Amino acid sequence: MERFLIDALVARALAEDLSYGDATTDLVVAQDIRAVGHLMAHETLVITGIEVFEAVFQMLDPEVRFEVYHHTGQTAKSGEQIACVFSNARVLLKGERTALNFMQRLSGIATLTRRYVEAVSGTSAKITDTRKTTPGLRALEKEAVRVGGGSNHRAHLGEMILIKDNHIALSGGIGQAMASVRAQMTKSCRIEVEITHEAQIQEALDCGCEIIMLDNMNLASIEKAVSRIRAQSPATRIEVSGGVRLENVAEIARCGVDFISVGALTHSAPAVDLSLDVLSV
Amino acid sequence: MERFLIDALVARALAEDLSYGDATTDLVVAQDIRAVGHLMAHETLVITGIEVFEAVFQMLDPEVRFEVYHHTGQTAKSGEQIACVFSNARVLLKGERTALNFMQRLSGIATLTRRYVEAVSGTSAKITDTRKTTPGLRALEKEAVRVGGGSNHRAHLGEMILIKDNHIALSGGIGQAMASVRAQMTKSCRIEVEITHEAQIQEALDCGCEIIMLDNMNLASIEKAVSRIRAQSPATRIEVSGGVRLENVAEIARCGVDFISVGALTHSAPAVDLSLDVLSV
Amino acid sequence: MERFLIDALVARALAEDLSYGDATTDLVVAQDIRAVGHLMAHETLVITGIEVFEAVFQMLDPEVRFEVYHHTGQTAKSGEQIACVFSNARVLLKGERTALNFMQRLSGIATLTRRYVEAVSGTSAKITDTRKTTPGLRALEKEAVRVGGGSNHRAHLGEMILIKDNHIALSGGIGQAMASVRAQMTKSCRIEVEITHEAQIQEALDCGCEIIMLDNMNLASIEKAVSRIRAQSPATRIEVSGGVRLENVAEIARCGVDFISVGALTHSAPAVDLSLDVLSV
Amino acid sequence: MERFLIDALVARALAEDLSYGDATTDLVVAQDIRAVGHLMAHETLVITGIEVFEAVFQMLDPEVRFEVYHHTGQTAKSGEQIACVFSNARVLLKGERTALNFMQRLSGIATLTRRYVEAVSGTSAKITDTRKTTPGLRALEKEAVRVGGGSNHRAHLGEMILIKDNHIALSGGIGQAMASVRAQMTKSCRIEVEITHEAQIQEALDCGCEIIMLDNMNLASIEKAVSRIRAQSPATRIEVSGGVRLENVAEIARCGVDFISVGALTHSAPAVDLSLDVLSV
Amino acid sequence: MERFLIDALVARALAEDLSYGDATTDLVVAQDIRAVGHLMAHETLVITGIEVFEAVFQMLDPEVRFEVYHHTGQTAKSGEQIACVFSNARVLLKGERTALNFMQRLSGIATLTRRYVEAVSGTSAKITDTRKTTPGLRALEKEAVRVGGGSNHRAHLGEMILIKDNHIALSGGIGQAMASVRAQMTKSCRIEVEITHEAQIQEALDCGCEIIMLDNMNLASIEKAVSRIRAQSPATRIEVSGGVRLENVAEIARCGVDFISVGALTHSAPAVDLSLDVLSV
Amino acid sequence: MERFLIDALVARALAEDLSYGDATTDLVVAQDIRAVGHLMAHETLVITGIEVFEAVFQMLDPEVRFEVYHHTGQTAKSGEQIACVFSNARVLLKGERTALNFMQRLSGIATLTRRYVEAVSGTSAKITDTRKTTPGLRALEKEAVRVGGGSNHRAHLGEMILIKDNHIALSGGIGQAMASVRAQMTKSCRIEVEITHEAQIQEALDCGCEIIMLDNMNLASIEKAVSRIRAQSPATRIEVSGGVRLENVAEIARCGVDFISVGALTHSAPAVDLSLDVLSV
Repeated sequence: MERFLIDALVARALAEDLSYGDATTDLVVAQDIRAVGHLMAHETLVITGIEVFEAVFQMLDPEVRFEVYHHTGQTAKSGEQIACVFSNARVLLKGERTALNFMQRLSGIATLTRRYVEAVSGTSAKITDTRKTTPGLRALEKEAVRVGGGSNHRAHLGEMILIKDNHIALSGGIGQAMASVRAQMTKSCRIEVEITHEAQIQEALDCGCEIIMLDNMNLASIEKAVSRIRAQSPATRIEVSGGVRLENVAEIARCGVDFISVGALTHSAPAVDLSLDVLSV
Repeated sequence: MERFLIDALVARALAEDLSYGDATTDLVVAQDIRAVGHLMAHETLVITGIEVFEAVFQMLDPEVRFEVYHHTGQTAKSGEQIACVFSNARVLLKGERTALNFMQRLSGIATLTRRYVEAVSGTSAKITDTRKTTPGLRALEKEAVRVGGGSNHRAHLGEMILIKDNHIALSGGIGQAMASVRAQMTKSCRIEVEITHEAQIQEALDCGCEIIMLDNMNLASIEKAVSRIRAQSPATRIEVSGGVRLENVAEIARCGVDFISVGALTHSAPAVDLSLDVLSV
Repeated sequence: MERFLIDALVARALAEDLSYGDATTDLVVAQDIRAVGHLMAHETLVITGIEVFEAVFQMLDPEVRFEVYHHTGQTAKSGEQIACVFSNARVLLKGERTALNFMQRLSGIATLTRRYVEAVSGTSAKITDTRKTTPGLRALEKEAVRVGGGSNHRAHLGEMILIKDNHIALSGGIGQAMASVRAQMTKSCRIEVEITHEAQIQEALDCGCEIIMLDNMNLASIEKAVSRIRAQSPATRIEVSGGVRLENVAEIARCGVDFISVGALTHSAPAVDLSLDVLSV
Repeated sequence: MERFLIDALVARALAEDLSYGDATTDLVVAQDIRAVGHLMAHETLVITGIEVFEAVFQMLDPEVRFEVYHHTGQTAKSGEQIACVFSNARVLLKGERTALNFMQRLSGIATLTRRYVEAVSGTSAKITDTRKTTPGLRALEKEAVRVGGGSNHRAHLGEMILIKDNHIALSGGIGQAMASVRAQMTKSCRIEVEITHEAQIQEALDCGCEIIMLDNMNLASIEKAVSRIRAQSPATRIEVSGGVRLENVAEIARCGVDFISVGALTHSAPAVDLSLDVLSV
Repeated sequence: MERFLIDALVARALAEDLSYGDATTDLVVAQDIRAVGHLMAHETLVITGIEVFEAVFQMLDPEVRFEVYHHTGQTAKSGEQIACVFSNARVLLKGERTALNFMQRLSGIATLTRRYVEAVSGTSAKITDTRKTTPGLRALEKEAVRVGGGSNHRAHLGEMILIKDNHIALSGGIGQAMASVRAQMTKSCRIEVEITHEAQIQEALDCGCEIIMLDNMNLASIEKAVSRIRAQSPATRIEVSGGVRLENVAEIARCGVDFISVGALTHSAPAVDLSLDVLSV
Repeated sequence: MERFLIDALVARALAEDLSYGDATTDLVVAQDIRAVGHLMAHETLVITGIEVFEAVFQMLDPEVRFEVYHHTGQTAKSGEQIACVFSNARVLLKGERTALNFMQRLSGIATLTRRYVEAVSGTSAKITDTRKTTPGLRALEKEAVRVGGGSNHRAHLGEMILIKDNHIALSGGIGQAMASVRAQMTKSCRIEVEITHEAQIQEALDCGCEIIMLDNMNLASIEKAVSRIRAQSPATRIEVSGGVRLENVAEIARCGVDFISVGALTHSAPAVDLSLDVLSV
C-alpha cells in the first residue's frame, strides 16, 4: 500500500490514542532519553505490516531509525526478534500500542492465510479473501492476505460482475440476470455467478459465465458440480465459498476447484502475539 | 456512540465498497423494486451495532424503514430474525456487506465479552477491555464491550495514569515513577501501576497507587498478591492482565481481584454469523 | 454515483465559492423571496449530472423542490428547458455557478461521447474512456461516459492488468512481463497488453493475453493487426488507442476492432452551454 | 499555490488511482530498478503545473529528484523535453497518469489563455477568467490563467460585489440594487454591475459603480457603450463578457474595453499533449 | 455562513467532547425524558450564533425544536431568555457545552464590536476587524463583527492588496512596492498602503493608492495626516490601526478617518455570560 | 501536543488565509530574498505555542530554521526577543499572521493562568480549567493552561463522571443520580458532584463521591462547606467553580479548597501582544 495512504490510516489511529496527550509518559520518562524498542514474536507467525509499524513511529518522530531482521512474508518464531526501532523513549511509549495494534491484526491475517494455503498445497486451488473486511482497513487487509500467499477476490463492488443469490432472486433467475448484464455491461471484466444448488449449474453454464461460485455446498455436491462443469466447459473457473474451515479446506481443494474463498481470513483472524520491549540506550 | 460519529465511519466504509459504483446490481436488478432484507442470526450471539447497521442503509436511502425484533444487548439464537430493513432492492444489495461487516464484528465482541462475564459470574471481578482495539474503531468496539457486560479500561493515553513495565524500566523504578507523577501531575485522575513480579508489590503499596495491575502472573502469584494487598491496603483495587483465557478466567476471578482485562475481547473476537436475506415485496 | 459521495464533492466545490459568504446577494436580494430557476440548454447536448445539480441546491436548502423535464441520457436542444428548481431566491443565486460548473462539464463529456458512439454506429466497436480524467472527479466523469453510451476502461490501477509500453521496456519484453504476471498474479482479472508496433503482435498472441491494445498505429497497421489476431486467436479482444479523433474513428471502427479508447472524452470535452434563469415567483 | 494545498489535491487524485494498489506494476517491474522519466511536449504549449507534477512524485517517493529545462510560463515546442524525474521505476509508473492529468489540464489552460492574450496584444484590454472552473481545482486553474498572461476575476462570491442580471431582476433594477449595496455594505471592495442592454448604461453610470460589465452584446453595441461611458465617466472600467471567441476577441479589444472575461479559459481548454517516457538508468 | 460550513465546524467541536461518549449522562438520566433548555442571558449582550447553537443540537437530534425570542443582532439583557430548545434530556446535556462555547464567543465579539461602533456614532468612521481571528473560526467571527455593526477588512491574503510595513522594508520603499504592484497585478482590487510615520504620506499619495492605513500613530499625527490627505486627494480613504481602545476610539474617529480597525474585536473579546437551564417537560 | 495533530490545525488555519494565494507579497517582494523574523514581546507574558509557531512556517518551508531564546513556560518581558525564524522573505510574510494568531492566543491563556496560579500561591489550591474552550482548539488550550501552571479538569465528556446541576434536576436528586452511577458504571474513574446550595452537602457526602464541586457559592458558604466536608470526610476533594475572578481567587483559596476552576482561562483570556519584525538578511 502506498505510504501516503498508510499515513492517513495511521494518523487516524494515533489520534484515537493521543488526541488528549499521554498523561503518563511525559511525567514519568525524562525528555532526553534515547531508547530502543525490540519487536518480539511470541508465537510462530507470518510477518506483515512492517511499513505500517514504521509509519506510526515516523509520524511521531521523523528521525526514527529501524533495523529489520525478518521481512514481510517471512516467518518469525516465538522468541525471535523481528525488528528494532531507535528513537526517543517517549516516542516509543506513545506509538507502541498503535503500532502493535496494526501489526498484530495484519500479521494475524497473513498467518491464518498461510495456514489455509499450506492446507491446500499440492492442489491447484487458490485461497482467496472476500469483502468481509474490517471497515476502513480493506486495502491493508487484502494486502495481508497476499502476503500470506492468498489471492484477492474483488476489492469493491465496482470491480467485476458477481451475480449473487440475492441478485438472482430479485432478477428472476440466472438466465435473466446474465441477459441483463450482457445487454448493458459497459466494461470488460470477469463475470461470476453464485450457485446455491446443483440445479442451477446448467443454467450458469448455458449463460457462458466465466466463473461459477458454489456457495455453501457439501463435499459431494462440490465433486459432482466440478465433474459436470469441467466436462462441459473446461475454461470455466470454479470457486467454492461458505462453510470453509481449516479442517475441511484440503478436502474441498482436492475436488479440483480453482478458488476457495474464506471470509474468516479477514473477519475472524486472531491477532498474533507481539510485544515491543523498550530499553534505554 | 453519537450518530454523527457513526456516520463518519460508515461513509468511510461505504466508500471502500462503492467509490466506483456497483458493477452488478444496477445491471441486474430493476430500478423500482421494493424489497425487504431479513437480518438473520446463524449462531447464538449478543446483539450490538444495530444503529450502525441502520446508519449504513440510511446513508444510501434516507427513506429506509426498519423493524427491530431483538435489541442491543439481547441474545439472538441461530435461526432467529433480528431485524428487517425495507428499501429499494438496489439499496439493500449495495449496503448489505458493509452493514454486516460492522455488525458481525461488533456483535462478535459483545458475544465474546458476555462469555467472559458469565464465566466470572458469582465473583466480584469485572471483565475489562484494553487499548488493543482495531485502528479507527476504538470507541465503537469499547461500546460493544459494554453491551456484552464488560467494563472499559482507559479509552486513550490521556485519560488516566497507568505506569507500565516500560515506564518503570525507563524511569528507574516504581518509586521514582510515582514520585515524578505526584510532583507534576496536572489532573485529578486514577493512578495505576503495572507489576510484573511479586517483589514490586510492596513498592507499589508504599507509593499509594490506587490500582495495582498484576501482569502475566500465574494463579499462585495472583493469590499471594491479593492477600498481601488486601491486608495492607483494602482500598487498593487489583487488576489482572495477560494470559487470560476463557478457560482460566474463573479461577483468576476467584482469587478475589477487581478487574480482569482481556485484550482478546477486541483484538481476536471472531465475527458472528449473520446474513441479510433480500426478498422483493 | 451514490449520493453521499456526490455530497462530498459538492461540499468541496461550494466551499470554494462560499467559504467567505456571498458579498452581493444578501445585500441586494430580500430574504424572503421565493424564486424559480429555469435550467436552459443553449445547444444540443446529452444531459447528465442532474443528481449533482440537485445535490448542490439541496445542500443549501433541504426544502428545495425540482421538476425535471429531460432526464439523464436524453438529448436537449438549444432553447429547451431541462429542469426547474424552486427555492429561496438567495439560494438559487448562491448555488447557480457551482451547479452549472458540474453539469456543463459532465454533460459536455456525455455529449462528446455520444458523438463518438454515433460515429461508430453500425460497427461492433465500443467507445471507451481512459484514466485521463479530471483529478478528483474520476468516478463522476466515467459515469458521464456511460450516459453518453460509452464503455469504461479500468477505473484505477488496481482493477485489471494492463501492461503498457513503459512496463514492457522496463521488464525486458512482453514475454517476460507476461511470465512475471502469470507467476505472481493474485487475482482473477483480465490481462491486456499494449502493442506499439506490429512486430509485437506475435509475442502478445503467444502469451495468451486476453486483450491487445494497438497504440498509436495507422489505419493500415490496424487492419493488418486485426486480420492476424482474428486468424490466430478469435477470442482475443482488440483495442485501439491513440490518435483517435471524430474524423477518423469510423474508419478505425470499420477495421473490426472491439474497443476504441479516447482520452479526449474526459480530458478535452468542451463544457456545454447551459444557463439558470432565475425569476421570482 | 502553497505546497500544502497542492499536496491535499494530489493526495485525493492519487487515491483515485492507487487506493487498491497497482495490479500490474509490482508484478512486472523489479523492485530495485532506478529509472528516469522524460516529460516531453508533443505540441506547442505554455508550461504550468510543474510544482504539481513534482508533488505527485514526491508523495510517492520523498527522495525523487527533478531536472527542469523549461519553467513555468515558458513555451515548449513539440518534441522538446520539459523536465526529467529520477526515481524508482515503479514510482514513475504509478505516478505518471496523475502527474500528467494535472499538468496537461493546467498547461492547457495557460496555453489557451496565452492565445487570447496574444490576440489582444497592442490593445489595453486584459483577458480575465471567470468562476466557471472545475469543481475542486479553482485556485490551481486561476493560477494557470495568470501564468498564461491573463488576469483573475473574483475568486469566490465573497470577494467583491458583482450585481448580475439575476440580481437586478430580483431586486427591481440597478438603482435599487446599488442603493441596497451602498446602504448595507460592510467591506471596502469594488462594485461591478452587469449590463445586458444599452438602456441600462445610464442607470449604471448614475449609480457610480466602478466597473460596468457589458454582457453578451454585439460589437456595435460595445462600441457605442464604450464611447458613452468614457465620455461621462473616464474612471469607470469596462468589462466585456459572453460570446467571446478567439476569432472575435481582437475586435472586441479594439473597442477600447478594459477587461474581456472568457469562461472557456477554464471550462473548455483542451488538455495539451504531454507524455512521460520512462527508461531504466 | 452557509449551514453546511457551520455543520463542519460543529462536528469538529462536538467530536472534541463526545468522541468517547458521555460517561455521566447516560448513567444518570433516563432514556426517554423530554426536556426543554432555556438559553438565558446573564449580562447585556448582542446576540449572534443562534444558527450555530441550533446546528449543535440538530446534529445530535434531527427532530429537535427551537423557539427563538431574541434574534441575531438584537440585544438581550441580563435575566432575559433568548431561546428555548426542546429535545431529549440527554441530547440537551450532551450538546450544552459545545453550543454555549460557540455562542458565548461569537456573541462576545458582536457585543464588543457594538460597543466600539456606538463609541464612534455620530462620526463617519467605520469599525473594522482584522485577520487576527481564532484559527479555524475566521468566517464565523467576521460574521459576528458584522452583526455587531462592524465592517470586515479583507477575509484572507488573496482578497485585496495591502502593502504593510514588512513589505515596504523588504521591497525598498512605498514607491517601489507600488510600482511592482502596478506592473504585475492580475486582478482588479483595492490597493492599501500601511504608513508608520508621517514622512511616508507624500510617498503614498504620489503613488495613488486608494486607502492609506495610519499604523500606530498618535492623535496629533493622525489629525495632521488626515488634513494633508484630504487636501491633496479627497477620494483616498483613510484607515487607522494599532493602539485603538474603547477609551480612545471616539477621539480617533473625530479626526475624520474612514475606518478604524480593531484586532481586539476578534482576538480578545471576552465570552458573554450565557447558560442553558434544562428542565424536564 | 503531538506534531501531527498540530499540523492538522495549522493546515486548516493557513488554508483560511492562503487558499486563494497572497495577492500582495508575490508582487512586492522578490522571490529570492532571505529574511529573518524577530518574534518580539510587547508586554510581560508566559510563552507557549512555540511548536505551533514553528509548525506554521515549516508547513510553508520545510527548510526553515529557528533560534529560540525564551522557551515554553518562561516569562518574556516587553521588548524582549523570544525567537528568530530564518526563511525566504515571502514565507515569513505569508505565515506571520497565522503563527501569531495561534501564539498570541495560547500565550494569553498561559499568561492569565499564571496570574491566577500566583494569586493562590501559598495555599494548597490548584487552578484548573474547564471545558469552556474554543471550538476546535481544546487540547492546545488545555496544554497552555498547564504551561501557565494550571491543572486540567476533564478533557471531554467521556473522561470522568461529573454530576452537574442539570443531571441532578433530571434524575431526581444526588442520591438517585449516584445510585444510578454506581449500579451501571463501566469504568473506574473519579466521581464528582456539583453542589449549588449547602443543603446538598450532606447528600453528597452520604453518597461517597470523591470530589465535591461548590458551584457559585459565596465565600461564607464555601468556608462552611469546607469545614463540614473536611470534618466528615478528609479524603474528599473540594472544587470551587463559578464567579471566580483574579480579585477574589486568593480568598477562595484560603478557604482550604483543593481546586478552583476558572472558565475565563480559556474563554476570555486576552491575546498577548507579540509581533514578528521581518528584515532581509
